[in-house]
Amino acid sequence: MNIILVLGAGRSSSSLINYLLENSKNEQWQVRVGDYALELAQEKCKNSENAFPFSFDIGNEEELDKEVKKAGIVVSMLPAKYHTVVAKSCLRWRKNMVTASYVSKEMKALDAEAKEKGIIILNECGLDPGIDHMSAMKVIDEIRDNGGELIGFESFTGGLLAPGTDEKNPWEYKFTWNPRNVILAGQGVVKFIQEGTYKYIPYQKVFRRTEQVHIPGYGYFEGYANRDSLNYLDVYGLQGIKTIYRGTFRRPGFCRTWNVFVQLGATDDSYEMEGVGEMTHRSFINSFLSYNPHDSVELKLAYYLNLDIDGPEMHRLRWAGIFDHTPVGLAQGTPAQILEHILKKKWTLKKDDKDMIVMWHKFQYLLSGEEKEIHSTLIAIGDDDVQTAMAKTVGLPLAIATKLILQGKVKATGVHIPIKKEIYDPILKELATFGFEMSEKEVSNSQSV
Amino acid sequence: MNIILVLGAGRSSSSLINYLLENSKNEQWQVRVGDYALELAQEKCKNSENAFPFSFDIGNEEELDKEVKKAGIVVSMLPAKYHTVVAKSCLRWRKNMVTASYVSKEMKALDAEAKEKGIIILNECGLDPGIDHMSAMKVIDEIRDNGGELIGFESFTGGLLAPGTDEKNPWEYKFTWNPRNVILAGQGVVKFIQEGTYKYIPYQKVFRRTEQVHIPGYGYFEGYANRDSLNYLDVYGLQGIKTIYRGTFRRPGFCRTWNVFVQLGATDDSYEMEGVGEMTHRSFINSFLSYNPHDSVELKLAYYLNLDIDGPEMHRLRWAGIFDHTPVGLAQGTPAQILEHILKKKWTLKKDDKDMIVMWHKFQYLLSGEEKEIHSTLIAIGDDDVQTAMAKTVGLPLAIATKLILQGKVKATGVHIPIKKEIYDPILKELATFGFEMSEKEVSNSQSV
Repeated sequence: MNIILVLGAGRSSSSLINYLLENSKNEQWQVRVGDYALELAQEKCKNSENAFPFSFDIGNEEELDKEVKKAGIVVSMLPAKYHTVVAKSCLRWRKNMVTASYVSKEMKALDAEAKEKGIIILNECGLDPGIDHMSAMKVIDEIRDNGGELIGFESFTGGLLAPGTDEKNPWEYKFTWNPRNVILAGQGVVKFIQEGTYKYIPYQKVFRRTEQVHIPGYGYFEGYANRDSLNYLDVYGLQGIKTIYRGTFRRPGFCRTWNVFVQLGATDDSYEMEGVGEMTHRSFINSFLSYNPHDSVELKLAYYLNLDIDGPEMHRLRWAGIFDHTPVGLAQGTPAQILEHILKKKWTLKKDDKDMIVMWHKFQYLLSGEEKEIHSTLIAIGDDDVQTAMAKTVGLPLAIATKLILQGKVKATGVHIPIKKEIYDPILKELATFGFEMSEKEVSNSQSV
Repeated sequence: MNIILVLGAGRSSSSLINYLLENSKNEQWQVRVGDYALELAQEKCKNSENAFPFSFDIGNEEELDKEVKKAGIVVSMLPAKYHTVVAKSCLRWRKNMVTASYVSKEMKALDAEAKEKGIIILNECGLDPGIDHMSAMKVIDEIRDNGGELIGFESFTGGLLAPGTDEKNPWEYKFTWNPRNVILAGQGVVKFIQEGTYKYIPYQKVFRRTEQVHIPGYGYFEGYANRDSLNYLDVYGLQGIKTIYRGTFRRPGFCRTWNVFVQLGATDDSYEMEGVGEMTHRSFINSFLSYNPHDSVELKLAYYLNLDIDGPEMHRLRWAGIFDHTPVGLAQGTPAQILEHILKKKWTLKKDDKDMIVMWHKFQYLLSGEEKEIHSTLIAIGDDDVQTAMAKTVGLPLAIATKLILQGKVKATGVHIPIKKEIYDPILKELATFGFEMSEKEVSNSQSV
């Protein structure tokens, strides 16, 4: 009987735990699920005979050690800052570990010790980061194996609404993952390389420098740039590449409207606003507009940001309720916290809403002097507001990786992300059996977007 | 013989030291001027028999103590971060101290000890902060003494070019003070109160939310908002005031053009750019624009920011040389550092250039139920590129305050800024003898700008 220790039983753990429980009988696993809120752990364990939910506090190192010592592998779904605490316990007891989070500096520093102890700490093994790494490296490795030279790599991922869901929502968007990250997206400076030139986009222009991408069968998307494209030069071994660009997909028109919040300063998380207790949606927006006793908030906003009063941006803003006299409902907060609170009122998935994950890579490469291009696309649709495409595409790769490591099919030791074929290949293959498969196709340059 | 210890002999100390030396014979002063660069101290001391220039390192606490012990008063013109080091030595030896810098938290924390030791540490005693405090508090005190209630306070200061100087410069601007502060101006969020409502402006809109002010005889100015207006509620005792707004003056058109740099991201100081050694002015600007092999940098910029290609913004930008193929001339740098370096090539005062200080306050108040308004204006013109209006209006208040303290005319102890009548009144009176006098006038509301 192998014990899998899952720490953290929030929404993002549901697909992960489902998979582990479904395989627990065959594989002879006991799945121990610890959460600060015992009910959450119990709920995710669904009375399965191979599951053991328990109350767990990451602040209690003794208990952590006790649980890790018993386990064959540890999956940390805790907030990212706690991963190294778990990792250090895993090092003490020589246990393997899996997370879906970015490798922090502190985590990276554990690489040598993990190698020495003969364990693997596999990170970035969810969707983005996760499936993006795996599906990109698969194509990059194939191009290289065939003697091709990669000259351009662009990659976009978006968590959106499935076609047919909430069709009157003009944003074609709801929160399907951490809302706070959505509000703060793009802050800092974007850096990427285009045709051999370093390019920089400040926050105030990120949502106006979008790219349009058409995906046959799913229509048009617009992508805004992520901050971290240059990190991928090292991660994927792409030094010298002419173009590298990573971004996030939204439906067309979203970014131009989101830019209204950016321009107002409504996404600022650096200061607490005054008088939040008495604030309405409307007075929140008005605090970013000039004083004028005679003009409406709508007109001041439209004039300030040069929007058509009857145009699509104003329609989306009205739909989101930002001009309503509704109380915000917070006692205090930064602009970003208040905006998140307001948008959650409209942007929370309802029971029958289905979400959709769209991932799209574009690879440009030279083969025998000829320029070639491959597009790789993943579309995943959720079942409902709990078994979302987001939860599944984050949880399944984690769960499959956990299985592979337990089965001894991953030989690597140290701190890793899933960019080695040994790791990504079996995960991608099993993901395909769940219907999550990238469709890759060679396109002629004239088709290129 | 009273010893005045001046620490720091950079450009900003010239008017200060001149005044002290001119008064040294009458007042029986020895002026000891210490700087890390002995030549600077020597140059400022001009072989005066009452001056003693010496080489000074703020890192050497023993030497600092030795000098402070000898002195009757210490004027710190060092970078602001060193003021508390000097202040602690002044506390050890019970010596008074004067600076032109904002009171830091660390400085404020020394208040009780300064009171206990019976010394004054007078800060913010230059132009802005300095004369702005004094000239505003004078009018505010007068309004209150007459039974009036202040309901609005707006205040602008600008360091500009005097009429007739460099008339072909379409910015009507050159650096007359710390260029780095000019480049970074407006970063962070602006907060103020207008008609009883808290208002917030993010950096990306600061240079588009300007106010126009006309000053008879000097023409039109545009003011952008400073970050710190709300601090003045406490400092001036203005809680409950309906409108408070502080800003910086430029000539009309400046802000709209400066906004181009803001929108590009060219004022960002948070990251080092790549390939600075090979960068030209033109490639610097191009790194913020989208890639397009066929369009010029000029056209891409004009299109991106919706500027007329033959309009005033593009003219100012061309004049500043930002489209030139000239090498930047730095080995590395942040966008802000590179932009500063480029602009210094055109924005450095030449020998015969004269600068101009413009300070303007607007006070709105109620007197016997009637709304009244006072405008208070200071114009100061420099002599040349060394005896600038900026150097004089920063240095003279400091020097006068130093004299008043030495003469025992200031009784206050503790950490102060010049908002008490005891301090501001004699300083303003003596400044007037140098031609630096606010002209105050009651305006009828219809004249109000």
